[in-house]
Amino acid sequence: MAGSPRRTAGRRLQLPLLCLLLQGATAILFAVFVRYNHETDAALWHWHNHSNADNEFYFRYPSFQDVHTMIFVGFGFLMVFLQRYGFSSVGFTFLSAAFALQWSTLVQGFFHSFHRGHIHTGPAQLLLMALLEVVLFGLNEFVLLSLLRVKDAGGSMTIHAFGAYFGLVLSRVLYRPQLEKSKHRQGSVYHSDLFAMIGTIFLWIFWPSFNSAPTTLGDGQHRSALNTYYSLTASTLSTFALSALVGRDGRLDMVHIQNAALAGGVVVGTSAEMMLTPFGALVAGFLAGTVSTLGYKFFTPTLESKLKVQDTCGVHNLHGMPGVLGALLGVLVAGLATHEAYGDGLESVFPLLAKGQRSATSQAMHQLFGLFVTLIFASVGGSLGGLLLRLPFLDAPPDSQCYEDQVYWEVPREHEDLAQGPLRAEELETRA
Amino acid sequence: MAGSPRRTAGRRLQLPLLCLLLQGATAILFAVFVRYNHETDAALWHWHNHSNADNEFYFRYPSFQDVHTMIFVGFGFLMVFLQRYGFSSVGFTFLSAAFALQWSTLVQGFFHSFHRGHIHTGPAQLLLMALLEVVLFGLNEFVLLSLLRVKDAGGSMTIHAFGAYFGLVLSRVLYRPQLEKSKHRQGSVYHSDLFAMIGTIFLWIFWPSFNSAPTTLGDGQHRSALNTYYSLTASTLSTFALSALVGRDGRLDMVHIQNAALAGGVVVGTSAEMMLTPFGALVAGFLAGTVSTLGYKFFTPTLESKLKVQDTCGVHNLHGMPGVLGALLGVLVAGLATHEAYGDGLESVFPLLAKGQRSATSQAMHQLFGLFVTLIFASVGGSLGGLLLRLPFLDAPPDSQCYEDQVYWEVPREHEDLAQGPLRAEELETRA
Amino acid sequence: MAGSPRRTAGRRLQLPLLCLLLQGATAILFAVFVRYNHETDAALWHWHNHSNADNEFYFRYPSFQDVHTMIFVGFGFLMVFLQRYGFSSVGFTFLSAAFALQWSTLVQGFFHSFHRGHIHTGPAQLLLMALLEVVLFGLNEFVLLSLLRVKDAGGSMTIHAFGAYFGLVLSRVLYRPQLEKSKHRQGSVYHSDLFAMIGTIFLWIFWPSFNSAPTTLGDGQHRSALNTYYSLTASTLSTFALSALVGRDGRLDMVHIQNAALAGGVVVGTSAEMMLTPFGALVAGFLAGTVSTLGYKFFTPTLESKLKVQDTCGVHNLHGMPGVLGALLGVLVAGLATHEAYGDGLESVFPLLAKGQRSATSQAMHQLFGLFVTLIFASVGGSLGGLLLRLPFLDAPPDSQCYEDQVYWEVPREHEDLAQGPLRAEELETRA
Repeated sequence: MAGSPRRTAGRRLQLPLLCLLLQGATAILFAVFVRYNHETDAALWHWHNHSNADNEFYFRYPSFQDVHTMIFVGFGFLMVFLQRYGFSSVGFTFLSAAFALQWSTLVQGFFHSFHRGHIHTGPAQLLLMALLEVVLFGLNEFVLLSLLRVKDAGGSMTIHAFGAYFGLVLSRVLYRPQLEKSKHRQGSVYHSDLFAMIGTIFLWIFWPSFNSAPTTLGDGQHRSALNTYYSLTASTLSTFALSALVGRDGRLDMVHIQNAALAGGVVVGTSAEMMLTPFGALVAGFLAGTVSTLGYKFFTPTLESKLKVQDTCGVHNLHGMPGVLGALLGVLVAGLATHEAYGDGLESVFPLLAKGQRSATSQAMHQLFGLFVTLIFASVGGSLGGLLLRLPFLDAPPDSQCYEDQVYWEVPREHEDLAQGPLRAEELETRA
Repeated sequence: MAGSPRRTAGRRLQLPLLCLLLQGATAILFAVFVRYNHETDAALWHWHNHSNADNEFYFRYPSFQDVHTMIFVGFGFLMVFLQRYGFSSVGFTFLSAAFALQWSTLVQGFFHSFHRGHIHTGPAQLLLMALLEVVLFGLNEFVLLSLLRVKDAGGSMTIHAFGAYFGLVLSRVLYRPQLEKSKHRQGSVYHSDLFAMIGTIFLWIFWPSFNSAPTTLGDGQHRSALNTYYSLTASTLSTFALSALVGRDGRLDMVHIQNAALAGGVVVGTSAEMMLTPFGALVAGFLAGTVSTLGYKFFTPTLESKLKVQDTCGVHNLHGMPGVLGALLGVLVAGLATHEAYGDGLESVFPLLAKGQRSATSQAMHQLFGLFVTLIFASVGGSLGGLLLRLPFLDAPPDSQCYEDQVYWEVPREHEDLAQGPLRAEELETRA
Repeated sequence: MAGSPRRTAGRRLQLPLLCLLLQGATAILFAVFVRYNHETDAALWHWHNHSNADNEFYFRYPSFQDVHTMIFVGFGFLMVFLQRYGFSSVGFTFLSAAFALQWSTLVQGFFHSFHRGHIHTGPAQLLLMALLEVVLFGLNEFVLLSLLRVKDAGGSMTIHAFGAYFGLVLSRVLYRPQLEKSKHRQGSVYHSDLFAMIGTIFLWIFWPSFNSAPTTLGDGQHRSALNTYYSLTASTLSTFALSALVGRDGRLDMVHIQNAALAGGVVVGTSAEMMLTPFGALVAGFLAGTVSTLGYKFFTPTLESKLKVQDTCGVHNLHGMPGVLGALLGVLVAGLATHEAYGDGLESVFPLLAKGQRSATSQAMHQLFGLFVTLIFASVGGSLGGLLLRLPFLDAPPDSQCYEDQVYWEVPREHEDLAQGPLRAEELETRA
């Protein structure tokens, strides 16, 4: 059935039509709603005499480019570890990130929504998911940052916990009991793991920019970068330690190094701009790396067998648990904020505390409530998303053809001969 | 004959001698002509009391480094898709870019000439081509920017159209009717395509820096980066859409994604610093991605069979057509410039308009004439270049050995066994 | 014996315990000693009214990120050329750099100690070596910069010569006469060489940031970047020239291009911030590329056979000789410093000369003595390090299993079938 002429014609048109439709829609919305702001508009900028050095560009653009690199290089290559799904990993990240950039401009502005989920769906589904996720992300963020006045610069809650649980619930709704038919393609090969390390390394080095990009200028950006940096060093050490500890004969597992070493960046997403102290950053990073590595080893298998959630990339270990931990750490550090520790800097980190409109304890309670709201939004959104993606016109590959580039890409022939587990003849026939 | 002892000795000495000669020449010219400017010279900079923050270094260096990354990582790896020409692609880009940096310092200054053509010639030929191309590029740019007072910050004309047609005409002059003997090496393998995506992704993320690097400080840089960014997102969407639309069974083609997705950066090269509007950027990028993808699918085969131009990397689709389109877009946007839209910013974007020495229509006509001049320079220069490279002492590989690293590099042995189409025994014999 | 159950249990616990111990120790030291400085502490920064643009973050962070990229991407991938040691190369660089960042914070501060040696030891040994090397590096640097008042911004002496001779002497102490048993794994495969070029290219493009990161703001950073840049272009040209000249049939050797092309960055490490002149930079880079390439071709084999130093990556050719050359170049350029050439800039480059407390000749003599001190520190430190790493509880792999990821990592199975020289059955048995 999957190979009937009608379905093939459907697949042929599905991605192009969706791209064209979405591009047409955003273009019209751009024409109606999007204008240069006063820092990019020639007339507005020159209206008053500014010094060129005051243009936000010079403060934000280096960090912006670093984050850019994380999304396209980092996440793009991180998922290339799948031996026969490299084109899809890097290609569909590219496509959905490009669309999300336009869409999120409309939904909220220039410096947000850099996070992309990765689940085994087709490119058309990814685009639709981006469509929904960006809206819900923006709504959740609006509730947290503008209504609850919660701090979350690096996005432990708004980005990591939200994205992870959105994706995991969605994956639960899309559960495919026969997916083990594609199991033989779920592993890596030697060089695909090296490509994935390109992703890991770029994510690691630019994570300080990610967490500091949206914070207040001056000491705020400096401190966020520094805390993130130390937290990452500690999660790297604990990941190597735990990976060797739980490995066969003390051997390290590339999956842990590629992912859990980054958990230190996630866990300080809320608190990096606060007076976490370098010591606090080390402890937080160490815990995050530990929890994440143990999650890959012991929890992910359970997640699939018991909870029917297929989490190929371990989103729960890298973004879910460390994100929740990071939110709780934010609760703690916010609750400990004093006028003494922050001085006049309290104004920019916790403006409501500085104005006396909120106590530190109250801020901490708001932070905690923010986490709760995030988990609700993510779960409801993920369910809605899953139902949307199950709409019959969306033509997902059969269970036996997941993690296989040939479904979506022209693949050089040599691969068929060299790699294990090529698409078997009968599988290809169903697509003829 | 190609394998005679004399020829082998010639090859052995050709590249070293050329490198030594060129390096000696530029070194002498550096000794005579090149001095630190007032921002790099210890005495001159401290002559007046500047604030350190005023040193151009802090405004330009981040963008400069991004562009740097594009040339060496981006273009270097973009061409690694050839299965047995990876060493040459990344190695010769490295060599010719390094030389061109010295040479273009002499020809014109610090921040220009970042573009390198890639055609199937040997390294010695590439160096000579850089020698000529940098001169003609500088001359063309001087005519456009200084005499015609044309705007072209991101180089739709001076860089992309010039480089593309220079290379294509040169490739026409060097046409090798027997090149299909190397056809079996012109394809990619799975991992060489992933390496090429490293190039694509770095080009994509840093293209906003490329187009904004030379523009005026402040709003000019900000606007150029923003327009380029949106244009790239749109060309990515249209490339995926069109690639699936024209592909077998709706499958995507890696060649399209690797290249045409970048056309959005080329097409706003002239107009990115102007008040193009974000909507305009989306439309421009979308068209460029479409034209470029269709070019790869339908025009490139004709280019070789009918026009005898061998365009392995699709320079015409990524740089040629989008460059010309970008020039025409610049004509349009310049012609629409008003005092109202630019305010006092008109002074920095169109100084002659601000001073009343030119009307918008006249500026548009100058832009159009600039494109015409560029195409003339490129064609004449490419012809001269082709003739130069056919000089008999330049020892190009025989038609059956193109796209083959072993001609120029020591290659690890395993490759012979694993890859398709190794150098056959008789081919190697001709070199013995 | 290597495979006895006790040893296996030892290996299983060695890395985790060492990671945990080191992390615990640095965390405690952080709690006791490390505080935010006045640019990162919320209270301290806001104590006085600064402009945000004055925060050092905006002057240093872009360069800091570039150097970051060099260490983790550059050095990480540079060593991936070993066909079966890619996981270890990129993984252990990651681990030891992450630890060294914490440790060097304690030993000396934020912007130092970016250099990591690579020798064939296990991860536990690398961590211990980092422990010692960072201390000695800091001590040597303190003697040179603070006591001798020597200039060495890019670290020709303190980083390259120190690191190279530390590592080479250590490698001499750890000499393994039977290492040729692992010879078949010491080569590269085609794609591992391409991965290594990712490392090379990132090192090349960011080396100007490396040499300019710690210099004085303004003209100093600008000049250091510029000199380094030109020197690198010249070492690239001379490396291609010499590699083809000494190669079989004029063929290039990837090892030379991957390494010697970078020697231009090393050789101006001391003098890049001085008034070296662009011409001087070209000459220095050219010589460094030449010496380095000839070193790979002719000296490295002797180093092993005669001097019993196993230098797999050619540290002596890339860091040793060019580092010493760079120190001597610093002697020369310092000796030529005049009030005329530097103007008021003399104050920031050579403060003692500006104050009349030292003549140029005296500064030159101090520079020379600094090199001497560095070589002593490196040799004594390397010997101590070697003895430390030979402690019996440190479980290094047997001679026949060097350069083999399977000793430390779970490796995807396909590799065994595809690559040459898999771990033979009896080798694996010794580990069972």
